[in-house]
Amino acid sequence: MAYSLAELAALVGGRVEGDPERAVESIQTLAAAGPRDLSFLTHPRYREQAAASAAGAILVGPGAPPLQADLLVVGDAAQALARLIALFHPPRRPAPGVHPTAVVGEGARVDPTAHVGAYAVIGAGSDIGPGAAVHALAVVGRDCSLGAGAVLHPHVVLYDGTAVGERSEIHAGAVLGSDGFGYASAAGRHTKIPQAGRVIVEADVEVGANATIDRATLGETRIGAGTKIDNLVQVGHNVEIGEACILCGQAGIAGSTRLGRGVVLAGQAGVGGHLTLGDFAQVAAKSAALSPVAAGVKVGGIPAIELGKWRREVVLRGRLEEMGRKLAELTRRLAALEERLGAESEED
Amino acid sequence: MAYSLAELAALVGGRVEGDPERAVESIQTLAAAGPRDLSFLTHPRYREQAAASAAGAILVGPGAPPLQADLLVVGDAAQALARLIALFHPPRRPAPGVHPTAVVGEGARVDPTAHVGAYAVIGAGSDIGPGAAVHALAVVGRDCSLGAGAVLHPHVVLYDGTAVGERSEIHAGAVLGSDGFGYASAAGRHTKIPQAGRVIVEADVEVGANATIDRATLGETRIGAGTKIDNLVQVGHNVEIGEACILCGQAGIAGSTRLGRGVVLAGQAGVGGHLTLGDFAQVAAKSAALSPVAAGVKVGGIPAIELGKWRREVVLRGRLEEMGRKLAELTRRLAALEERLGAESEED
Amino acid sequence: MAYSLAELAALVGGRVEGDPERAVESIQTLAAAGPRDLSFLTHPRYREQAAASAAGAILVGPGAPPLQADLLVVGDAAQALARLIALFHPPRRPAPGVHPTAVVGEGARVDPTAHVGAYAVIGAGSDIGPGAAVHALAVVGRDCSLGAGAVLHPHVVLYDGTAVGERSEIHAGAVLGSDGFGYASAAGRHTKIPQAGRVIVEADVEVGANATIDRATLGETRIGAGTKIDNLVQVGHNVEIGEACILCGQAGIAGSTRLGRGVVLAGQAGVGGHLTLGDFAQVAAKSAALSPVAAGVKVGGIPAIELGKWRREVVLRGRLEEMGRKLAELTRRLAALEERLGAESEED
Repeated sequence: MAYSLAELAALVGGRVEGDPERAVESIQTLAAAGPRDLSFLTHPRYREQAAASAAGAILVGPGAPPLQADLLVVGDAAQALARLIALFHPPRRPAPGVHPTAVVGEGARVDPTAHVGAYAVIGAGSDIGPGAAVHALAVVGRDCSLGAGAVLHPHVVLYDGTAVGERSEIHAGAVLGSDGFGYASAAGRHTKIPQAGRVIVEADVEVGANATIDRATLGETRIGAGTKIDNLVQVGHNVEIGEACILCGQAGIAGSTRLGRGVVLAGQAGVGGHLTLGDFAQVAAKSAALSPVAAGVKVGGIPAIELGKWRREVVLRGRLEEMGRKLAELTRRLAALEERLGAESEED
Repeated sequence: MAYSLAELAALVGGRVEGDPERAVESIQTLAAAGPRDLSFLTHPRYREQAAASAAGAILVGPGAPPLQADLLVVGDAAQALARLIALFHPPRRPAPGVHPTAVVGEGARVDPTAHVGAYAVIGAGSDIGPGAAVHALAVVGRDCSLGAGAVLHPHVVLYDGTAVGERSEIHAGAVLGSDGFGYASAAGRHTKIPQAGRVIVEADVEVGANATIDRATLGETRIGAGTKIDNLVQVGHNVEIGEACILCGQAGIAGSTRLGRGVVLAGQAGVGGHLTLGDFAQVAAKSAALSPVAAGVKVGGIPAIELGKWRREVVLRGRLEEMGRKLAELTRRLAALEERLGAESEED
Repeated sequence: MAYSLAELAALVGGRVEGDPERAVESIQTLAAAGPRDLSFLTHPRYREQAAASAAGAILVGPGAPPLQADLLVVGDAAQALARLIALFHPPRRPAPGVHPTAVVGEGARVDPTAHVGAYAVIGAGSDIGPGAAVHALAVVGRDCSLGAGAVLHPHVVLYDGTAVGERSEIHAGAVLGSDGFGYASAAGRHTKIPQAGRVIVEADVEVGANATIDRATLGETRIGAGTKIDNLVQVGHNVEIGEACILCGQAGIAGSTRLGRGVVLAGQAGVGGHLTLGDFAQVAAKSAALSPVAAGVKVGGIPAIELGKWRREVVLRGRLEEMGRKLAELTRRLAALEERLGAESEED
């Protein structure tokens, strides 16, 4: 199956620079692409690789440099790339039906258009919506719900009462609804505070492999619609995450913290408990936000401070050696002056 | 089912300020509670929310401010909260018995009061104690033991030889007994050092979702009684953790390190290998203890130093720009003096 | 079964200092070993423990101190230890054959010498090589391949198209081939970029428990032969890792980054996206490499800089208080000089 470059341009609302009849059979990386492939240049750091690529055609955004290949020029190269990969690699939908080995609890409802895989276990009273998929060996506790088109990959575990919204996708090994980490400590003993709340994942959320989201002590831990969570992220009990946030790999959020809309936590970032991060706040990679962050503010460092200030600190830290030398030199010169003036004084 | 506030006070050894006949039907967060609910104020940061809450009654510790709601005043609000949540949300005990799909290996003993869920796999020679629960799809290797009342949530994996003590609870996806990370490296090749030891988890331990605890190379990796481990924590081979420690989310401990009793690792903290942390030592969030920590000492930073010193460093780091300016100013003023005195000298 | 010390020496190419007829029945830690056990001293930090050990014999490298015990002296104690533990604890090979409860998809090939455990699920078109093991409840997607002798521990998940090389061992709960974290963001919405590539794990790789390795957007995420990856490590999409690298616990690598051969990431280290780390580069524990690292260079800190420079920074940070004091003192002394000279000027 091949498309002409002009057809692809029409599909993504772009224009062709070069041969509109160029036949495209697949989409490939710059390194792997050949004359019958489309590749893409979505970041300037790959310009040299694009110039050296054997790709017949390259998808680019506005202002891209001239290249050997025919160009498919669009306003937003990342959006067009998403569309074109989906064209060449249409998602595989699992067949509707419940595998004969799946265990479905009493009173659970599985929509006839949903897929339930081998050895999946669905607890009593749960509700699996139209077109949803519970893949092999996933566990859905009691009284859970899966919205239309939601997907649980193999080995996902939903504890009792967890709700996953429409079209949300939970990757393999993720655990939603495990007990929050709460103890009443006295006399060297930690008494468990029962965790009686639940986890609500709204629509269009993605949760990465082996990520963990704890149930609330009471009430809800909530993940807002359209939020994307990467692998091995930890979300503590009673956390509330707004819409369209981005939580990168291995980030963590301690209990009862609230993130506004569009908040970004970069890789391995941490956020302390009982804090509020305003809309569109950002925490830099490997940083730890241990106090509230106002809307729109970017922070970095441990503990995190305003990002520009942190960057200056990093530069200044690098000058500590030089500062120490200058200080020693000033000390010497000042002592010399003092000695000389002391001598002069004696001469008086 | 409703309780009077006086009944609840009797249960937790507290007293009522307000109407002892106040009927309480459930326990809720400050935001969700209504007139027939009890809520709680366990931290001053929530005072305003407590004042604004519609809760009919609020559990408080000593010295709490006056509130609109009737008060249930106790000596330790967190302990009372634990008791009261358990009252309104009694834990669900899984029914005794082995699910017909569970695979139980040769010579394994499952107490008749224990629960073994669907598709759980129990290895030869293992021993599941009275009232213990092996939930759906959990894997117990060969020659493991589960003490009375211990719980393995779905998808827990115990490698061969792992012992889990009485009443300990292991959350979904946690892996106990995986091979330690040990290689003999020479000439650019890493030869695996077989990991022939085991993991011992003592009584009343809790291990969080997707946490990992490696088996010892030889001997034991040991988690002391009453220790609580949060999600995604990593414990290396041959680590020995004392009693009643607290390891918060995403913390990690490298191999052969020993933690005393009551040690606290805050979120995302790390501890290097072959170290000793004394009783009640604490490592701050996002910090890395790379040298031994004496008993009772709190450390922070990377590498971690005494906490007070680290906090001063953080403050001083924030003054680097100012220090640089002062240094430049002193340099100017000193040069001016030197120039003037040089001139004076010439006048002599 | 007992060996004489002389037999063990012959096996590992070492020599005996002491009684070559010493009978050795097992290998134990220094603390646990008795007169009929061999123990080992592979690091000077355990010299005191070795001196106090009741072990009948101790394995040591060249230049070890004299000890009470008979010594087995070798050129490389770690390599000999690996060999000797394997001798006393031979690895248990699971029996060939497919458990009757395993689900094997259409067109999948399982070598008759391979082991497939209870409730394992193998997707259509996959290929399980000779002597390979797919343990209980592991999931192999469609069109995957497992090389000869490769091992998937319980609950491993391979997404479609993943290849695992000969003798590679994937520990429990690890997820290979989950979707990379890629979105096209516009107008506050994150559109998923389909992740259509795959994961290739070459031969002799070890992947730790609950580690995650994402599939490429297009093309491959690749783990080089002989590389060892510890628990809870995250490897982003399109990452390419060279041969014989070491990635310690909870380390993470963002997307499209390339590691050369023999690279070491210490515990909880992070590496940014789209970077290159040259052969034998090393990132210190808890550090974040956010720019490229040249071959052979060791870096530390956040952001990571050359290791020696970072260590000096750490020392200098510890002197900030003293620098502040010196600066204040110089300011006072300079002001005193200025005042005096001002006075002297007036006297003129």
